[in-house]
Amino acid sequence: MSRWAIGIDLGGTAIKAAIVDEKSGIITDRTIPTDTASGPAGIVVQLAGIIADLHRVASLTLDPLDCAGIGLGAPGAVNAETGTLSYPPNLPGWAVVPLRDNVLHYLQQHKELSIPVFVDNDANAAALGEALYGAGREFKDFLLVTLGTGVGGGIILNRKLYRGSNGTAGEVGFMIIDFEGSSTHAGIKGTLEGLIGKKRIVELARLMIEATPSGSSVGRFCDNDYTKLSPRHLEHAAKEGDAVSLAVWDRIGSILGVGLANVVSLMDIRKFVIGGGISAAGDLIFSPALDQLKRSTLPSMHDGLELVPALLGNKAGMYGAAALCFG
Amino acid sequence: MSRWAIGIDLGGTAIKAAIVDEKSGIITDRTIPTDTASGPAGIVVQLAGIIADLHRVASLTLDPLDCAGIGLGAPGAVNAETGTLSYPPNLPGWAVVPLRDNVLHYLQQHKELSIPVFVDNDANAAALGEALYGAGREFKDFLLVTLGTGVGGGIILNRKLYRGSNGTAGEVGFMIIDFEGSSTHAGIKGTLEGLIGKKRIVELARLMIEATPSGSSVGRFCDNDYTKLSPRHLEHAAKEGDAVSLAVWDRIGSILGVGLANVVSLMDIRKFVIGGGISAAGDLIFSPALDQLKRSTLPSMHDGLELVPALLGNKAGMYGAAALCFG
Repeated sequence: MSRWAIGIDLGGTAIKAAIVDEKSGIITDRTIPTDTASGPAGIVVQLAGIIADLHRVASLTLDPLDCAGIGLGAPGAVNAETGTLSYPPNLPGWAVVPLRDNVLHYLQQHKELSIPVFVDNDANAAALGEALYGAGREFKDFLLVTLGTGVGGGIILNRKLYRGSNGTAGEVGFMIIDFEGSSTHAGIKGTLEGLIGKKRIVELARLMIEATPSGSSVGRFCDNDYTKLSPRHLEHAAKEGDAVSLAVWDRIGSILGVGLANVVSLMDIRKFVIGGGISAAGDLIFSPALDQLKRSTLPSMHDGLELVPALLGNKAGMYGAAALCFG
Repeated sequence: MSRWAIGIDLGGTAIKAAIVDEKSGIITDRTIPTDTASGPAGIVVQLAGIIADLHRVASLTLDPLDCAGIGLGAPGAVNAETGTLSYPPNLPGWAVVPLRDNVLHYLQQHKELSIPVFVDNDANAAALGEALYGAGREFKDFLLVTLGTGVGGGIILNRKLYRGSNGTAGEVGFMIIDFEGSSTHAGIKGTLEGLIGKKRIVELARLMIEATPSGSSVGRFCDNDYTKLSPRHLEHAAKEGDAVSLAVWDRIGSILGVGLANVVSLMDIRKFVIGGGISAAGDLIFSPALDQLKRSTLPSMHDGLELVPALLGNKAGMYGAAALCFG
């Protein structure tokens, strides 16, 4: 009786796809490496292949008539109305690709499948995944922030995706909080992504280690080779009490808090679901972020402020992509 | 046949009230000085008086059955659902006042009038006024920014007010764009209001005049008494080509552009209606703001970016308050 969908997370390194039951969640999923070398045409073939395969598997136990569609979360600027993907940052050589139409066409021509396809950007899909299956279930309105190589976001208002006038809403990483500062990212000064993206966290840590004569114990975690230093090492060191690593996270969390303050003041969103690889640092980031968030907003806006970890981890993309079909 | 309402703009110095026809706009309006000395109770009496008076006038030509209600735009934090006003900055001595209930009660008891009352904050009301009667008529989504003593805002999405989870959305003046900077406003560092509020514009101008050996011709407009300097003087001097005044506006516009960039990146709003007294500087602000807005956002977000002046001037509050009743 329950509807189901195929949710696909198209990433720069892997394509993750799942059969998702609307009520009970992921039934089965698989992952294949993204064939970036073949360009858009090759990836459409890959997508059609994995779709046909999962559809065949699903049809063994589920009613094909209950299939709500195929959802596709893709990196970069997606026009959800037309299903067009523009300049995905991690898929070299792509310009503007009518992803939905290409997949639909290939499925019909070569797999004899006629199923609706929904496309949105990966952060939007992840936000919808958390809204329906994860940490956002209890929130009517929230912002999903993904902390990783980049800083992304997806906005849920009234339990629905908020896409904005042109489908580009939620780019929290491009909010400017330090326009007089020296950091520049993607040509823009003082953006949140430039200040707390993965690269900058490592840079900041190196600077702080250098500036600390008593040293840091983080070296133990990266074989004393600071060219290998990663946020994960800083997380381990901080959890063992390393003062420098703790200070790095305190700083990063605090900057995140400033960015979230802008979301509170502008949009009156007070719930934040934090995901992405860097969010594994947990309270090392969350606690200073919440403190700073309060210092950076009017007291009349503090009621109900909450930061919670995303729950779906690397499955958020598949869940969210499937959720695009259930809307 | 057309509905009408009474729209009231409750300000710290004046109460402006109008009979507004839903289609043709303001029919008649009046202004009285706000009796701040008598506190909330006195103002409720003033409001009830002006309402009863306008209702009587309206009833001479309009059908009382077509009256959609009384709309009230008030400064400060308003809970539109409960009609409660909290700590209005320009009404000293107010704490949390159930404004709607007090007005309703007084109207019934003393004026024998039973009409629905709608309350919202003044920036929200002004945004709705521009949406229905002013510069926002052609825009589905836009942000109204008011530039004055403070920097306020109201968000229109899909031609409706966006109030947020708790009714506090639109506080664009509290967005932080310079968290490392030295400016502090209402206890928060680097806010847009702290950087381009009226007081800061004058301060910045004084600093820039001092730092310019060749001087500025703005002195001619303020009797060479820089303690009297106002944005209006800087506007006049800039329009006559004074380099320092031009540079002040360029700087102010540019900072505004950074703030608006955050709205573009986060909310994908690309239309901005600029009102408030300072907006009289027009292109002196708009032009550098738009330039900076483009430098501060991804090129994929430049389509459709537009800054336009608000059209309703000091009538926006009355129009918007009335519009609260037509929603």
